[in-house]
Amino acid sequence: MAAAAPSKPEYPGKLLNAAAIAKPFQESIKADIRHRVDKNLPVPKLVGILAKPSSPSIAYAEWTRKACEDVGIKFTIWKTWDDSQDVEKFQTEDNSESLTNFGLEADVEDLILAANRDSSIDGIMVYYPIFCGRQDTYLQQIVDPRKDVEGLNFYYCWNMYHNVRWIKPSQMGSAPGATSEGDLRSQDVAANETVPAGFAKSILPCTPLAVVKCLEAAGLYDTHLPYGDRLQGKNITVINRSEVVGRPLAALLANDGARVFSVDIDSIVEFSKRPDDEGKQGLGFSKSKVVVEAHKQNTSARLRSAHLVSPCTYKDAESCVRVSDVVIGGVPSASYKVPTAWIKEGATCVNFSSEKNFESNVRSRAAQYLPAIGKMTVAMLQRNLLVRIPIF
Amino acid sequence: MAAAAPSKPEYPGKLLNAAAIAKPFQESIKADIRHRVDKNLPVPKLVGILAKPSSPSIAYAEWTRKACEDVGIKFTIWKTWDDSQDVEKFQTEDNSESLTNFGLEADVEDLILAANRDSSIDGIMVYYPIFCGRQDTYLQQIVDPRKDVEGLNFYYCWNMYHNVRWIKPSQMGSAPGATSEGDLRSQDVAANETVPAGFAKSILPCTPLAVVKCLEAAGLYDTHLPYGDRLQGKNITVINRSEVVGRPLAALLANDGARVFSVDIDSIVEFSKRPDDEGKQGLGFSKSKVVVEAHKQNTSARLRSAHLVSPCTYKDAESCVRVSDVVIGGVPSASYKVPTAWIKEGATCVNFSSEKNFESNVRSRAAQYLPAIGKMTVAMLQRNLLVRIPIF
Repeated sequence: MAAAAPSKPEYPGKLLNAAAIAKPFQESIKADIRHRVDKNLPVPKLVGILAKPSSPSIAYAEWTRKACEDVGIKFTIWKTWDDSQDVEKFQTEDNSESLTNFGLEADVEDLILAANRDSSIDGIMVYYPIFCGRQDTYLQQIVDPRKDVEGLNFYYCWNMYHNVRWIKPSQMGSAPGATSEGDLRSQDVAANETVPAGFAKSILPCTPLAVVKCLEAAGLYDTHLPYGDRLQGKNITVINRSEVVGRPLAALLANDGARVFSVDIDSIVEFSKRPDDEGKQGLGFSKSKVVVEAHKQNTSARLRSAHLVSPCTYKDAESCVRVSDVVIGGVPSASYKVPTAWIKEGATCVNFSSEKNFESNVRSRAAQYLPAIGKMTVAMLQRNLLVRIPIF
Repeated sequence: MAAAAPSKPEYPGKLLNAAAIAKPFQESIKADIRHRVDKNLPVPKLVGILAKPSSPSIAYAEWTRKACEDVGIKFTIWKTWDDSQDVEKFQTEDNSESLTNFGLEADVEDLILAANRDSSIDGIMVYYPIFCGRQDTYLQQIVDPRKDVEGLNFYYCWNMYHNVRWIKPSQMGSAPGATSEGDLRSQDVAANETVPAGFAKSILPCTPLAVVKCLEAAGLYDTHLPYGDRLQGKNITVINRSEVVGRPLAALLANDGARVFSVDIDSIVEFSKRPDDEGKQGLGFSKSKVVVEAHKQNTSARLRSAHLVSPCTYKDAESCVRVSDVVIGGVPSASYKVPTAWIKEGATCVNFSSEKNFESNVRSRAAQYLPAIGKMTVAMLQRNLLVRIPIF
């Protein structure tokens, strides 16, 4: 006899849906692809490189395939292993050593180089983590930056932190500061999304970009304010400061004018937009002449990062969350939960972790709650792919 | 009343000395500098960037200065803080937050960019760790590769793993496999150290290179064997598989013909030289067609790594050490010690950790023991500096 279904509590807050937010982006991607087909232009092709027969990676790869088929992007999966064998035993047996080490990096590297070389392939994504740490970072750097739709190359990383929006393809990979860049920054181009002649768009990393676009869709950006200031007056807590998501996300939000409390396991810092005139910074120690001179030169060469990092006014996560208009969770742990009691009445909560970082009653206080952003991340990946090969 | 000095035990093994090993390298560097001075050529200049007033970093920087003065290399330290203030309080107070976060990355980045731009500076070294993890890796990648004397740029990393010894400066930073490289490998040039016309020497990371040169000095390389096979027949255990030292070191030793047991906290793997004909590898699962095809193409394009990684024949550190002709310790922990009882009679033991990884009686079994390699690391750094600006 089935138990009666538990009555579902009704919360006033709105449940946001990444699929719905992704919809207009997917439509625009679809239209772009249709246009290419109509004009007999090549349809962009993405390759997904699967290093290990681990269930989550395989599921994610199949999901990317579906999302690409939906919009008309060609997609192919390259696996290191032969599918005709029984891979399930590799998923269940203790085979961590043979899978993570023996020849695996060489195989992944072989596939990345083959994809770099293959002119029919426009974009490469690799399903991480494979080895974790600097070994994965090494693999990310050997992907041809022109095909790096995930935006993981340090070249893009530097551009993001410095708000460099347009790049000269010929200068790709040159050392920052070593050459005169001749770039155009976002402050030059305002909200104008047209790529200037001779330039290409720089790539933003998919996941942070997806969060930004979700906040835009949720109405957090005030379009009456000038471009670059549209989060002005908003306090945002980001719980996670990983180099791949949390830190770039905090920087992007600060660049748009927000005051960002960046909470990590061992510290809390504040990200804010770098003011035009910095004045005296409240540093614990005063700066050397050489660093002051370097500041000055880099400022005039426009080579300084677009955000500032400073000690946080609030000393614990609770105090940050209590004053935040937006709370973003990215803690990869099933046991971590932001207590609903901390949430400011009417706040927006966004979860980008694979685990749920908010309690089930979060909408009793939050006005909006987005439990997952995966669909938007894939849409941003597709957008990055199309941006790399614009229709001229 | 002073206690009697403890009587020093006499061990049969020889105590090696990095200063003595470094001597001929320093002499050759000195001669090179003298030659430049005589010919009125510019004397190379190295800048050391100090992010934090931490005692070990300051000591290391002063030590580099001394080593540079000894051979005639110009050296200058750029600190982020003003020296006229009392920095000692920053070393003793709990100020981890203000020092590690507030504006510090922006300051270090400012100094790196200023050094990239400054044409009077030929080499840049940064005293790590600053933030650890991917944030330090990010800083390593913004150093102009032409001034990266530490060899930490991923471009050099890739070259090292693929035994690419000569580079075309114009192709620096291009994605591997994306362009035809037209490079010369070590197998082409044998032991010939002359840089071919139009090429420059690729840089090897200082610390692994220092260990290799110490083993050469200790007589472990059999000069009767062909170049590239001179460690043939030697078993070497490397305890540490960090991306910055342990893994590159294992690869370099394997490239020279050794069988390397790479021991890390969670696994043991074996590095060996990639055979000309690989045949069937004993993988736990069979490879996909796409990876086999990529292997083939990358092999003919000579884009495959020079070493293979396979499961280790021996399942624990003790078994590895017991059969090893050379044991190399790099564990950054004061409590970690390789038991002397494990050491094979007559083996050579080398410690590159800041802590002592061998017991005080190691020379009761080891024929040779090198307790520290710091002096050689600095000599290799200086060598990398000179290699970047050859006298034409």
